[in-house]
Amino acid sequence: MVIEYDGSLYHGFQIQANAHTIQAELEEALLRLTGERVSITAAGRTDTGVHAVGQVIAINSELGIPPEKWGAALNSCLPPDIRVLSSEEVSADFHPRFDAVRKKYAYLLYRQRQREVFLRNYAWCNDEKLDIEAMKAACNYFVGTHNFKSFCAAGSAVKNYERRVESCVLHHQGPYLNLEIIAAGFLYNMIRIIMGTLVEVGRGRYPAAQVEKIIAAQDRKAAGVTAPPQGLYLLQVDYSGE
Amino acid sequence: MVIEYDGSLYHGFQIQANAHTIQAELEEALLRLTGERVSITAAGRTDTGVHAVGQVIAINSELGIPPEKWGAALNSCLPPDIRVLSSEEVSADFHPRFDAVRKKYAYLLYRQRQREVFLRNYAWCNDEKLDIEAMKAACNYFVGTHNFKSFCAAGSAVKNYERRVESCVLHHQGPYLNLEIIAAGFLYNMIRIIMGTLVEVGRGRYPAAQVEKIIAAQDRKAAGVTAPPQGLYLLQVDYSGE
Repeated sequence: MVIEYDGSLYHGFQIQANAHTIQAELEEALLRLTGERVSITAAGRTDTGVHAVGQVIAINSELGIPPEKWGAALNSCLPPDIRVLSSEEVSADFHPRFDAVRKKYAYLLYRQRQREVFLRNYAWCNDEKLDIEAMKAACNYFVGTHNFKSFCAAGSAVKNYERRVESCVLHHQGPYLNLEIIAAGFLYNMIRIIMGTLVEVGRGRYPAAQVEKIIAAQDRKAAGVTAPPQGLYLLQVDYSGE
Repeated sequence: MVIEYDGSLYHGFQIQANAHTIQAELEEALLRLTGERVSITAAGRTDTGVHAVGQVIAINSELGIPPEKWGAALNSCLPPDIRVLSSEEVSADFHPRFDAVRKKYAYLLYRQRQREVFLRNYAWCNDEKLDIEAMKAACNYFVGTHNFKSFCAAGSAVKNYERRVESCVLHHQGPYLNLEIIAAGFLYNMIRIIMGTLVEVGRGRYPAAQVEKIIAAQDRKAAGVTAPPQGLYLLQVDYSGE
């Protein structure tokens, strides 16, 4: 199933004790719908406040609901900030995370004070003067296969910091800056640290070319701040054969 | 002061016992800032769930805060879904409602299922097939001075139903339909009933020209449904000399 959610009121995707999470809502809806405990696997574990418009989840059920009807059925049991967009049958060994070949995320920055009340949960509201051309130039340094240790939250348990960024483009439209980034996989907080670093470039703290040195440093302290979660959106997950 | 707010979590603007309202939040912030009970007058009393980007409020204070500094001062005491955009000194007899010469509202309709999780509190999410050209044509019948009793919530205590609509235009952009309407004043629920009636025209329930007959009927039952509150925005209030 492809699902979308407004992450504003949730402690992230993954189920955890005593916390309001997307996965818990989905599993509760499945219990109400099917009368069974059905566990979910997902393409990505989004953090507190992070949104999705193309999260992919998989379930295993013997129930006689036709594959394409699961969306409407589950939506009738879900809160209005979580919606199933589509559903289809997959092979029994499909795994939404391990079988993903590519993920696309967006990070939205909103650059004016007016109407901030409507954007505060959906973008990084930041009205500082930013050099957008420098930020766009800096994006190019992220593309390719690099050791992204400088762009991974400190304390992450990961062993291999190498990731291949296929595309990293900053779009500028009116009061919005929208970073779109595609990779086979990302490190923990990687996109938020990339965005924080781009904003440092925009502020003029260092030139765009400094990004090359920040990557080479393999040190989280070399990079910029971690941008706030509410600007981040999981847009799309691709699988082989698509 | 010109203020904006996300009305999603409020029982409307006006203060009332045991309800979370915009006015109560503003008066509480003023109490915290000034140590005094300061009462507020406002240009319009928006309903539960209705938003504003250009509400105008006035207060009377002897405090030595310079007029243009009130915004920043109050914002430090207000929740993030209410913001003061600007503040200026006015004459002692200024009244934001009685002195208003013109108000502009918008009503936003969102026409697709995708990304509805983000729009559910900010637009009428309605993916029915609608004849937009017929709706645009119907808008013209609202312009001018008419008795708008058919477009006033039943039970309203008002005596005079005559209002002059200066402008009523439906903008169509991608998945959005945005009605912008300007008048010196509006009846209770007038814009939401106009929007509900436009949607009936869009559905083909009656032709655009029927609006003329609905106005002439002077009967609430002749018009369409009351559109839901979350699509309505108080955009701007004008005063003479502006």
